[in-house]
Amino acid sequence: MELELVTIGNELLLGFTLDTNTAELATALNAVGVRLVRSTTVADTPDAIRDAVRDALARTGFVVTTGGLGPTRDDVTKKVVADLFGAPLDLDAEYLEELRKRFERLGRGPMSEKNRSQAEIPRGAVALQNPRGTAPGVWLEGPPGVVVMLPGVPHEMRGLLETELVPRLVRRMAGSDTTVTRSRLLRTTGIAESSLADELEGVDERIAPVTLAYLPSLEGVDLRLTAWHMAAAAADAALEDAVQAILPLLGRRYYAEADGDLAAVVLDGLGRAGHRLATAESCTGGLLGERITAIGGSSAVYVGGVVAYANEVKGGVLEVSPDILERHGAVSEEVARAMARGVAERLGVSAAMAVTGVAGPGGGTPDKPVGTVYVAARLGDADRVVRLGLSGDRDAVRRRSAQAALDLLRGLLARSVGAEDPGLAG
Amino acid sequence: MELELVTIGNELLLGFTLDTNTAELATALNAVGVRLVRSTTVADTPDAIRDAVRDALARTGFVVTTGGLGPTRDDVTKKVVADLFGAPLDLDAEYLEELRKRFERLGRGPMSEKNRSQAEIPRGAVALQNPRGTAPGVWLEGPPGVVVMLPGVPHEMRGLLETELVPRLVRRMAGSDTTVTRSRLLRTTGIAESSLADELEGVDERIAPVTLAYLPSLEGVDLRLTAWHMAAAAADAALEDAVQAILPLLGRRYYAEADGDLAAVVLDGLGRAGHRLATAESCTGGLLGERITAIGGSSAVYVGGVVAYANEVKGGVLEVSPDILERHGAVSEEVARAMARGVAERLGVSAAMAVTGVAGPGGGTPDKPVGTVYVAARLGDADRVVRLGLSGDRDAVRRRSAQAALDLLRGLLARSVGAEDPGLAG
Repeated sequence: MELELVTIGNELLLGFTLDTNTAELATALNAVGVRLVRSTTVADTPDAIRDAVRDALARTGFVVTTGGLGPTRDDVTKKVVADLFGAPLDLDAEYLEELRKRFERLGRGPMSEKNRSQAEIPRGAVALQNPRGTAPGVWLEGPPGVVVMLPGVPHEMRGLLETELVPRLVRRMAGSDTTVTRSRLLRTTGIAESSLADELEGVDERIAPVTLAYLPSLEGVDLRLTAWHMAAAAADAALEDAVQAILPLLGRRYYAEADGDLAAVVLDGLGRAGHRLATAESCTGGLLGERITAIGGSSAVYVGGVVAYANEVKGGVLEVSPDILERHGAVSEEVARAMARGVAERLGVSAAMAVTGVAGPGGGTPDKPVGTVYVAARLGDADRVVRLGLSGDRDAVRRRSAQAALDLLRGLLARSVGAEDPGLAG
Repeated sequence: MELELVTIGNELLLGFTLDTNTAELATALNAVGVRLVRSTTVADTPDAIRDAVRDALARTGFVVTTGGLGPTRDDVTKKVVADLFGAPLDLDAEYLEELRKRFERLGRGPMSEKNRSQAEIPRGAVALQNPRGTAPGVWLEGPPGVVVMLPGVPHEMRGLLETELVPRLVRRMAGSDTTVTRSRLLRTTGIAESSLADELEGVDERIAPVTLAYLPSLEGVDLRLTAWHMAAAAADAALEDAVQAILPLLGRRYYAEADGDLAAVVLDGLGRAGHRLATAESCTGGLLGERITAIGGSSAVYVGGVVAYANEVKGGVLEVSPDILERHGAVSEEVARAMARGVAERLGVSAAMAVTGVAGPGGGTPDKPVGTVYVAARLGDADRVVRLGLSGDRDAVRRRSAQAALDLLRGLLARSVGAEDPGLAG
């Protein structure tokens, strides 16, 4: 099954708003076997909407629109599409009453007459409930084909996509030889894209027809496995086989699937091993703490930390000795190690990470150019420090540093768990 | 002048990639008086590209494409468009030589034969230099109209947009009665959208024909002023008049234009007044320090801070007395004030911010529900604490809290500068 998308909105063609609806619809549609073959963005004018919807119907017979359903004069989609189908707009008295009640409940005062038009539905169409907004979606089917009108506000669109559009499409295709395109994402860190490709050499043939794509980001390299145009059950099985073939090759480079966060993985491991955690940050300036505390429930493991941006804080609060700072410089293996030990002792915890480096744009030297960062991890009495040479701007260096610190601690943790009980090392 | 955009790429229709090129092109084109009237996304197939470009040419006679210029078999745009124009592809020997040299210079080894096709240009076309990638842009003009082909990789597209497409369009329109659509953005914080609208009541008429739009975000409410379809000089003058009319009404709610950051404004003010800064964070967990240190040069003012996530850190490092913690609870005015004083004294600085609150999703009580946050600012011996009742999820509460803390310190700073020298208070 194929369909086209028409996204409607002047603000999209002025560059005021980034279109996120297309990608979101595309992912959801492909996952249930509907191919999005074209997406067209037009202005809020009747002519532009009419032309785009008519042409799209002529090509595929099935069109989804987003936008142009609100109560203002710009919002004309419903009227234009109803005209194309030769259907008058009827007032849905039931929906109007519901709308009135909703306005009262939200304490928005009496409903404006402008909102009345939102309860109008093309004759023969189905109104799709939109609890997140006042404009219902509309499913209109007739001789020209099918047009499904969704609101343009992303969270309203997403709601209708999940609760109405996808289930209806799935029912519509039931029994037909539907094929889907589905993906899984494996996240790795601590290895460059090219090295990862070397380690995975030859795997493409083993996982075929599933394909493998490398998606490098500041957190590492994500691997996207995609099963194309297969029956749903076969796609899921092929993806699972591919994951099982690849995971052993990734070893501990792999840390999570989908949008899993390395900070959550580390917190979970520390919590289960009974550790509490502190951070000492120089160039990341709080980013590491921010990432950790972005995870709900992090307070069970994380007690806090010190942002030691100036050397006086490294000395005064973290008790890094002036001698070490003097001899090795603030950006050094010795200082990173001393910061981790200092914060662990100061805050009375058994696990710590520390970061010190040159995030740029200034501050580089021939010995320690911009991107030179030392990260330290400490667990019980064991510690480990690595020197990184990171590329990218200030933001990139800082984000890569935080990720590397988390990964270093994850490594220490795996070893310590493994040492105590090899059965848990997995 | 009007044109259409055709963005080419399977990954866009699969939802793997978010289309940022359209918004970027739209903004740049509208700013020089070119209206983007339609944007169409199609797959990497010759038929899909041909149909979309042909139809777009028939409507407007001027089409920009992005994508499909790389060396792989998917990249077919140039061939398809050349066919539409009846133009053969000629090898540009000069460009080929340049490409060879570039491969050598980058140490990529000998150039692959696949890359040879990138030096082919439709007869009569102009190659547009693309120093960021290997595929040149192409400007092809003939009886069907004009097609400008740009690469799809965003930073390559952006480069060609700025250095080639926009200057050529401006020259092309020189002398004609071109009108442009341009915007300016004024950033405010510390006031809700509805209150801001009340304070600005009646301003719409005063700034017409410039229009005003409210863009609420986690950092506050941005105001977008737009001059529509005017001569460039008139648009700039009308925007400047509108800015001058609105700024006095905003008072100190206004903090920066365009993408200016409140943290940078605060650092600048502190630096000029000779202050040094520290932070004490509970629920923001490092976010405030991260925002401050994201600003290059922040080390001149910011010395560091303490992430006091657990109460033992509030007591042990920041010297918040157990008595205060016991009596008022960690989320309280008294603790916020004591954290700010504690970190200022501990790190020996004259300026500080502190945040303590309930970011959620858990941890709320009837007295202090999720979203209850106390932020404190301290400057010299003066301090100020506010209680906030913030809406949104954990991330939203944390971001709004950090912004509120920065704004509170900005207020103290304005008052202190004003008290010393009223001439600087502006």
